[in-house]
Amino acid sequence: MVVGGDAGGMSAASQARRRRGPDDLQIVAFERGSYTSYSACGIPYWIGDVVGPRDRLIARRPEVFRDRFNIDVRVRHEVEEIDLAARRVVVRDGASGQRRAEPFDAMVVATGSVPVRPPIPGIEAAGVHGVQTLGDGEALRAELDSGRVRRVVVIGGGYIGLEIAEATHRRGFETTVLDMSPTPLGTFDPDVGSFVADAIRDMGIDLVLSEAATAIETLADGRVCCVHTAGGRELPADLVILGLGVRPDVALAHHAGIPLGSSGGIVVDRRMRTGVEGVWAAGDCVESIHRLSGARVVVALGTHANKQGRVAGINIGGGYATFPGVIGTAVTKICDLEVARTGLSEKEARASGYEYVTAFADSTTRAGYFPGAAPIRVKMTAERRSGRLLGAQIVGREDAAKRIDVCATAIWNEMTVEEVLGLDLSYAPPFSPVWDPVLVAARRADDAVQDDLAAAAG
Amino acid sequence: MVVGGDAGGMSAASQARRRRGPDDLQIVAFERGSYTSYSACGIPYWIGDVVGPRDRLIARRPEVFRDRFNIDVRVRHEVEEIDLAARRVVVRDGASGQRRAEPFDAMVVATGSVPVRPPIPGIEAAGVHGVQTLGDGEALRAELDSGRVRRVVVIGGGYIGLEIAEATHRRGFETTVLDMSPTPLGTFDPDVGSFVADAIRDMGIDLVLSEAATAIETLADGRVCCVHTAGGRELPADLVILGLGVRPDVALAHHAGIPLGSSGGIVVDRRMRTGVEGVWAAGDCVESIHRLSGARVVVALGTHANKQGRVAGINIGGGYATFPGVIGTAVTKICDLEVARTGLSEKEARASGYEYVTAFADSTTRAGYFPGAAPIRVKMTAERRSGRLLGAQIVGREDAAKRIDVCATAIWNEMTVEEVLGLDLSYAPPFSPVWDPVLVAARRADDAVQDDLAAAAG
Repeated sequence: MVVGGDAGGMSAASQARRRRGPDDLQIVAFERGSYTSYSACGIPYWIGDVVGPRDRLIARRPEVFRDRFNIDVRVRHEVEEIDLAARRVVVRDGASGQRRAEPFDAMVVATGSVPVRPPIPGIEAAGVHGVQTLGDGEALRAELDSGRVRRVVVIGGGYIGLEIAEATHRRGFETTVLDMSPTPLGTFDPDVGSFVADAIRDMGIDLVLSEAATAIETLADGRVCCVHTAGGRELPADLVILGLGVRPDVALAHHAGIPLGSSGGIVVDRRMRTGVEGVWAAGDCVESIHRLSGARVVVALGTHANKQGRVAGINIGGGYATFPGVIGTAVTKICDLEVARTGLSEKEARASGYEYVTAFADSTTRAGYFPGAAPIRVKMTAERRSGRLLGAQIVGREDAAKRIDVCATAIWNEMTVEEVLGLDLSYAPPFSPVWDPVLVAARRADDAVQDDLAAAAG
Repeated sequence: MVVGGDAGGMSAASQARRRRGPDDLQIVAFERGSYTSYSACGIPYWIGDVVGPRDRLIARRPEVFRDRFNIDVRVRHEVEEIDLAARRVVVRDGASGQRRAEPFDAMVVATGSVPVRPPIPGIEAAGVHGVQTLGDGEALRAELDSGRVRRVVVIGGGYIGLEIAEATHRRGFETTVLDMSPTPLGTFDPDVGSFVADAIRDMGIDLVLSEAATAIETLADGRVCCVHTAGGRELPADLVILGLGVRPDVALAHHAGIPLGSSGGIVVDRRMRTGVEGVWAAGDCVESIHRLSGARVVVALGTHANKQGRVAGINIGGGYATFPGVIGTAVTKICDLEVARTGLSEKEARASGYEYVTAFADSTTRAGYFPGAAPIRVKMTAERRSGRLLGAQIVGREDAAKRIDVCATAIWNEMTVEEVLGLDLSYAPPFSPVWDPVLVAARRADDAVQDDLAAAAG
């Protein structure tokens, strides 16, 4: 039985089916929403009319799972209770409203995440929207299309907040982004975040930083009219979008007695086992090991959910697979600006007890003389003395950000920046300068490591 | 003293200067050509009017080295003899024609490479051009601009051959490429090469495969008129371009008694020392260790030359640096087609004694629903049983090929395809599908490794 029919759950179901046929293993998946396996990450682009129509975001429909994989997917079915002792769940059919008990032998908990909603007055008002599910996206589009909206306030300047702000701005709405931190994209270092802030403002989006929302004010008809901040600002708004990210949706698991970790996610081992016999978990609701800090972290990303679901499914199917953890790789595009990160930010490195040096390299994405060469800045953080690469961040224009994957692969393998400098990376004028920007950053970081060593010795 | 004023030599000079001031170390560099530090890889793009003017290909002029770095660069000065016992060279000043002896304490041999010229009749005729130096490029451009040329035959379908063919085709010349192999780009596997062949033909370039040039015929005025092939074809040509690649230019070093390796390049250790006291070498003229095959190979690439020169210069300057070898990473773009490789081709893997499995993944460069998503095919070769990634090749359109660097970094670190599958690579719809194409290929390759294991066990 699979609880939750998105990336993690359906990957698990598909992989288990590949290894065990319908005679050997019945698979039923309950999904409280109306859709399975869609790209939540694509929602801002659909809102912004960059992609469409909506159904293109859906990777696989319930019928496909049913007909092709013999997986019984029931949408609009919410699991309300898991009884581990009795090995059964209580499911509510959203259409009929009826509840019924369903037995299971093995279970995958893939309940995903829920948007963070700050506990401020007005947060439940009409005109306050999340952007987590396709349903959220539909409601948001309907409002934007209604003609009632001119001014949009986005609360939260992380990935999703900025992506949705770009979407509403692109569609001609006056857009303001409100964020508590001094720079947006809080998982990036402030010196990189300030680049992003400039780019956002250059686009014509209003960016209010170092300010928390304290209340959402409504009119007599109950609709939002403005957002109040701790600093006393009043930001007029016909529509408020919550772009504060998500937290793991673990209420069901928690009530059932499935152990949660300090991060708030479900604790799993490398094979995605929860520790409760026959119960697996995958996707946004689980915690993962960060390979650099050793910390348990929750990272809500479709790519992890797919991998974790695959691992759970292979193991349920009798195979052997493990999920080896994360290193915090992420990428986004805001208008023409590409930003990416991997490993530890400076703040995370400090919190993990690392001492480090940093270095920047400003370069171009192609040979400087080649048409389309765009600026790229690579920042690297390396451990003092060992020179081990701890983190990298990239800001740039076209063709900049995907280079983060080289840094991610280097970090994964615990390379030093000196070793990175030796890497045999591809070179041709349409693709990079003769020293790839990643190599230039590694060279600078290696210089910084050596200088630090010399200073410590002298 | 530096012999050869391009990437390898001038990187060495600059790095040595950074560590040892002009009072401590005099640096003189002799370059037989008229330019220093230019991008040879950029020449086809300059010929094709993609980049220009010519001087944009020059990274640093002799004056800059002289004025800013106190490096005495003498262009149009050819070193004709190295006398290791007497620690002096004989230099010929191209302007005056005079020869003179110059002493040295330490030397960097950075004589680069020379184009391969098959020993066939007519190879020295007017109208037969190389594309190795900026001077070659100038001569070729002058001919193309003369109005005398309509039909171009390019001998050799490797990187440089295809790049120059695209350039002449782009400028409206009827272009034919002749290659001895059944598919172009011989360092790629034939199944990838056949993709390239189709793309070349689709562009309107004539591609004659499995045919060697046997003679270049000339008219009464001495100019070329056609190329004869072993199969009896006659390819009409007003201009012939040699795109057969290069071999190390080691005549000078060889006569001086500096040891050469079986690959034909100068033997160096990891610090770029030739084994002759005080004599270093860097760039296209040296051989490197291939980290996968263990073989000594010569790879003429600006990126290696820069790194090797840097290493030599640091060591000469009293520091410590090493060049860790190569794994055969390369990338090129032919019209809209991007192709890249790293590690061993199937042929190379066999020659090195590896048994292996292969797998393909066809995917898109962005989320399938995202505008601009372009096709990408990733091929991976993994060692039987161990699953170690041995090689990867990528063919695709926009934003495809640079992903080879992830494979290169994985190979560098001796990862298995199963480990690659676990990598935390960046994901967002504008940058990749939720499973990056590299991960899909790794998944397929891992399946192939497991299937092979099962078959061997069963």
